Amino acid sequence: MAPVTNGRVLFNSIPEGFPVPGESTVYDASETIDIENVALDGGYLIKTLDLSIDPYMRERMILPDSESFTTPFTIEKPLDGFGVGSVIRSENPEIQVGVHLYGFLGESQFPFPLFLSSIASLTLEHQQYIIRKDLTGLQKIHNPNKLPWSTFIGVLGMPGKTSFVGWKEFSRAKKGETAFVSTGAGPVGSLVIQLAKRDGLKVIASAGSDEKVKFMKKIGADVAFNYKTTKTTEVLEKEGPIDIYWDNVGGETLDAALNAANNKARFIECGMITVYNNENIAGIKNLYQVVTKSVTMSGFIVDDLEEQYAEEFYKNLPPLVASGEIQYAEDVYHGLESVGDVMLAVQKGLNKAKAVIHVADD
Amino acid sequence: MAPVTNGRVLFNSIPEGFPVPGESTVYDASETIDIENVALDGGYLIKTLDLSIDPYMRERMILPDSESFTTPFTIEKPLDGFGVGSVIRSENPEIQVGVHLYGFLGESQFPFPLFLSSIASLTLEHQQYIIRKDLTGLQKIHNPNKLPWSTFIGVLGMPGKTSFVGWKEFSRAKKGETAFVSTGAGPVGSLVIQLAKRDGLKVIASAGSDEKVKFMKKIGADVAFNYKTTKTTEVLEKEGPIDIYWDNVGGETLDAALNAANNKARFIECGMITVYNNENIAGIKNLYQVVTKSVTMSGFIVDDLEEQYAEEFYKNLPPLVASGEIQYAEDVYHGLESVGDVMLAVQKGLNKAKAVIHVADD
Repeated sequence: MAPVTNGRVLFNSIPEGFPVPGESTVYDASETIDIENVALDGGYLIKTLDLSIDPYMRERMILPDSESFTTPFTIEKPLDGFGVGSVIRSENPEIQVGVHLYGFLGESQFPFPLFLSSIASLTLEHQQYIIRKDLTGLQKIHNPNKLPWSTFIGVLGMPGKTSFVGWKEFSRAKKGETAFVSTGAGPVGSLVIQLAKRDGLKVIASAGSDEKVKFMKKIGADVAFNYKTTKTTEVLEKEGPIDIYWDNVGGETLDAALNAANNKARFIECGMITVYNNENIAGIKNLYQVVTKSVTMSGFIVDDLEEQYAEEFYKNLPPLVASGEIQYAEDVYHGLESVGDVMLAVQKGLNKAKAVIHVADD
Repeated sequence: MAPVTNGRVLFNSIPEGFPVPGESTVYDASETIDIENVALDGGYLIKTLDLSIDPYMRERMILPDSESFTTPFTIEKPLDGFGVGSVIRSENPEIQVGVHLYGFLGESQFPFPLFLSSIASLTLEHQQYIIRKDLTGLQKIHNPNKLPWSTFIGVLGMPGKTSFVGWKEFSRAKKGETAFVSTGAGPVGSLVIQLAKRDGLKVIASAGSDEKVKFMKKIGADVAFNYKTTKTTEVLEKEGPIDIYWDNVGGETLDAALNAANNKARFIECGMITVYNNENIAGIKNLYQVVTKSVTMSGFIVDDLEEQYAEEFYKNLPPLVASGEIQYAEDVYHGLESVGDVMLAVQKGLNKAKAVIHVADD
């Protein structure tokens, strides 16, 4: 077989504001690969199937020597992030052809999350074919329920694990209580809504479009609203007080949640996206209510809790996803050529659900 | 015996800013009491020994119908607050002469704490002699170590209990860690410093005068500084990162502590006095670090935890105070005539330690 194109998405220039498709990142089709004959040197060859586009990736588009908690992308090198690939050739006896791998597909070191709560330390490059030596940064996928591979970067990947471990560890949920979930249509928030409903709570959920509101209602939210057209403070005043707040945004929404908090409320601090894109935000004004209402606020990183909950997660979640008892949504785009546009959409919150780049069929 | 003066401190007018001695409150000597013959109607007579002046009292100097979490003082009625008295006559068989009572000596209902973390629901009027029916709002004091009665409104009273239950419940202190304590010379902070040292921690402590700094060093703080002359951020940058922050102040100090927090730091939110006297404060800017550093923030009210720790507290603390292993400081003023001046001093932070009004000897 003749060599084929090995398409890649390269980091091309540091954006000033939002990333510019074709400028901050470029799709490059100049490389080819001879799949059957390329030297593996004892390693193995991965075909990339699905890649995840996540908000935190913008934070990696910085100068290599910038002071940051993340590992910057390298100019002229492929981006990398969460992804799923299948092994199509192997000289490594531990890694058989047909095995599927989940990971952060790239060469970068684990990028420490700055505002996103958690990123597993597994990575895949944004490239159609990848040669690797060993399993460093990757994890074999067991898929007895034959779920779509993309679920392993979504509801069964880092976002799903984030919801699961955060909820289990910090919610102290009691039947009949009220939970408020911000960005409830996102991959993390949507699972939180469903976990809260399974625990018998009343769930209030917010998102930024009417379509997302519809989805949140579909997956069980008792009260779902578009924060762009309805005031969060008014909804919480009417539907609260809240016993649990799952925070993905910080800012004014957090202030509103503090104001609507019940005594001994639990605030699970998963992310503060409003700070993430804006350094000149107003501070949190209502934090004194943590004292007056005996609130507990818990920030966490999924990595610290993943192992503790791994067995429970992989035992319970895949069957529930397979049976449809746990629902998820994906916004699927096709081909590495779309990465730049999708990254911009994710930064602007224009994606409708978990953003997935489908690179190739299995 | 002829009737004697029954001096009282009356609430006279609502202050606009700081309370004005002789105007917001007045000492009144117009009432007399015939100690030996006054009718008790089955009740008992208390002689007031020591009264506590606390910052939260300013919050009670408001209109009776104001929206507040506290019970306002009543114009022309005596103030009330924490105090210790002894029973000098009794017709109630459950309350013997010679018994000492701790309480919130007054007629008011339990004033819910707004910014102060905790207030026990016991009260004494600011008055030399008080007639009561039963023990409502009061508690008999057991004092086998023969400690000064004033300790029961300080290191062994609400402030001491606040330090003890907060530290035990939320610090998860490990030997070798570093704690930062704000208002470390106050009745709450000074016990926290000593509990932290007893647990083998390095302790950084701040207060608002050089004299207080000296006291904090004397009770064991490894690093003590005057926040008015030394920048908190600089001290914490040099001496941190911090694993535990005991917060009595909120505001900029809290922002500095967030910045200096270690991964998985515990923030014990006892009070935010900076908010208490100022509604137009800047918000907390660094709260996103709760997410990035997996910080836990716990607000609490001593009442919720008091029972759980009561046995441990009363078993361990009084002997340690008696032996001098736990130290405390009091700023003692004499006579009810001084209440107005002391209240102002406490609001301005001019008192040197726990403010106590000594009304009478036992």
